[in-house]
Amino acid sequence: MTTATDKQAFHARLLEIGNERYHDKHPFHAMLHGGRSTMTQVRAWVINRYYYQSRIPMKDAAFLSRCDDPDLRRAWRSRIEDHDGGVDEGGGIRRWLRLAEAVGLDPAYVASTRGVLPATRFAVDAYVSFVREKPLLEAVASSLTELFAPKIHSERIAGLLEHYAFADHEALAYFRQRLAEAPRDVEFGLAYVLDHADTAEKQDAVAAALTFKTDVLWSQLDALYSAYVMPGRIPPGGWDGEQGVVGGPTAREAAE
Amino acid sequence: MTTATDKQAFHARLLEIGNERYHDKHPFHAMLHGGRSTMTQVRAWVINRYYYQSRIPMKDAAFLSRCDDPDLRRAWRSRIEDHDGGVDEGGGIRRWLRLAEAVGLDPAYVASTRGVLPATRFAVDAYVSFVREKPLLEAVASSLTELFAPKIHSERIAGLLEHYAFADHEALAYFRQRLAEAPRDVEFGLAYVLDHADTAEKQDAVAAALTFKTDVLWSQLDALYSAYVMPGRIPPGGWDGEQGVVGGPTAREAAE
Repeated sequence: MTTATDKQAFHARLLEIGNERYHDKHPFHAMLHGGRSTMTQVRAWVINRYYYQSRIPMKDAAFLSRCDDPDLRRAWRSRIEDHDGGVDEGGGIRRWLRLAEAVGLDPAYVASTRGVLPATRFAVDAYVSFVREKPLLEAVASSLTELFAPKIHSERIAGLLEHYAFADHEALAYFRQRLAEAPRDVEFGLAYVLDHADTAEKQDAVAAALTFKTDVLWSQLDALYSAYVMPGRIPPGGWDGEQGVVGGPTAREAAE
Repeated sequence: MTTATDKQAFHARLLEIGNERYHDKHPFHAMLHGGRSTMTQVRAWVINRYYYQSRIPMKDAAFLSRCDDPDLRRAWRSRIEDHDGGVDEGGGIRRWLRLAEAVGLDPAYVASTRGVLPATRFAVDAYVSFVREKPLLEAVASSLTELFAPKIHSERIAGLLEHYAFADHEALAYFRQRLAEAPRDVEFGLAYVLDHADTAEKQDAVAAALTFKTDVLWSQLDALYSAYVMPGRIPPGGWDGEQGVVGGPTAREAAE
């Protein structure tokens, strides 16, 4: 049984996890939003982050597949719709590929996920497995990094618009749209978690799930930083800075 | 149907994957074996690599759990025995903890896996999931990095003995033992794969599985390098260079 005060303290505990560990504190984002990333670094980010985007609907489908409460399924399903869009148009994945095009990448190459770093795959796949395997409460809790997303999306829109020629209304549609979607999703997820984590043990499990998810996000930036920020050590099979770039070397240099 | 020539060419193709991508080529190993690692880096390696060791028997149990051929299970089972040892003694995991002790770490801390980098977990867990989910032939193929292990173990034993005060017969028992075990395991796995990959499609799947496994190994060293080699960026929650070190700062400095 949780009192209102318990809930408030638990809510504060979750916010503190984001405060300490959310990936807005990673130096890769400071570079990206501050205009200090090369186009190769921007493209590497777009290629790798696409893998995360592409697995979100699979993660949410895994969630639905384990959920025997029709009301919970109905409330959750919009997440798949938001990312996949309709048969012919819309959806976060298509908007991300517009960003890929804007930064000079072949969207078909990005969608193939061929250039994705192994470490990105491992981190993202760990998230899908987590939602497939853990108790439902922890699966919901792992989505709560969305609590911290509006701030980073706003900073990103402002930073990219200020510093990069490719950034315009169309290229950044993904982030603008998430500013509308994320608060609704997270309001539901947060209320669910605050209601259902009604023992100290469940609160600890929820906190661990949110911590795990911050690790999933942070690791992706560590991998990008390690591979593409000087002295970059691109692992075997990682994107080489050339594959999938539209127009070849000339276009590449112009874009830098 | 494969001819002897096909098999030979396919065998050569597998060796070439190791030649290009096995983690003996990673700069972290060059540092470690060449005596250029600090004790903090050696300890970070021991802590993180323990996580890999600890998951190998779970990986092999996942393999057995999917395997309906008693002969294949009987041949495979020794891998679990090699790593776990008996109820009271023996086994690779206990030998690894002796190495942990030799480098000045509390074995109980290492065994808790608390200090393991998230990226290490994600990579290793991806390996366990792979063996749990993929066709049996690919699961066998993912073990074939053992083809390349004796060389790295020999180099490691020589390099550690030459360069580090902690290295002695007892501390390095894990690697000596693997020199005896790995060739037997890999002989079986290689023969299985050469016999069963009897179409071009299966050969491609085997090559992809071995490539995946080299990614699992490489990513672990990238994560170590990124966190603990200057300028190290230890991710939130990563081992801080102090936890679990026996004797505190004084012992730490002496060991450096």
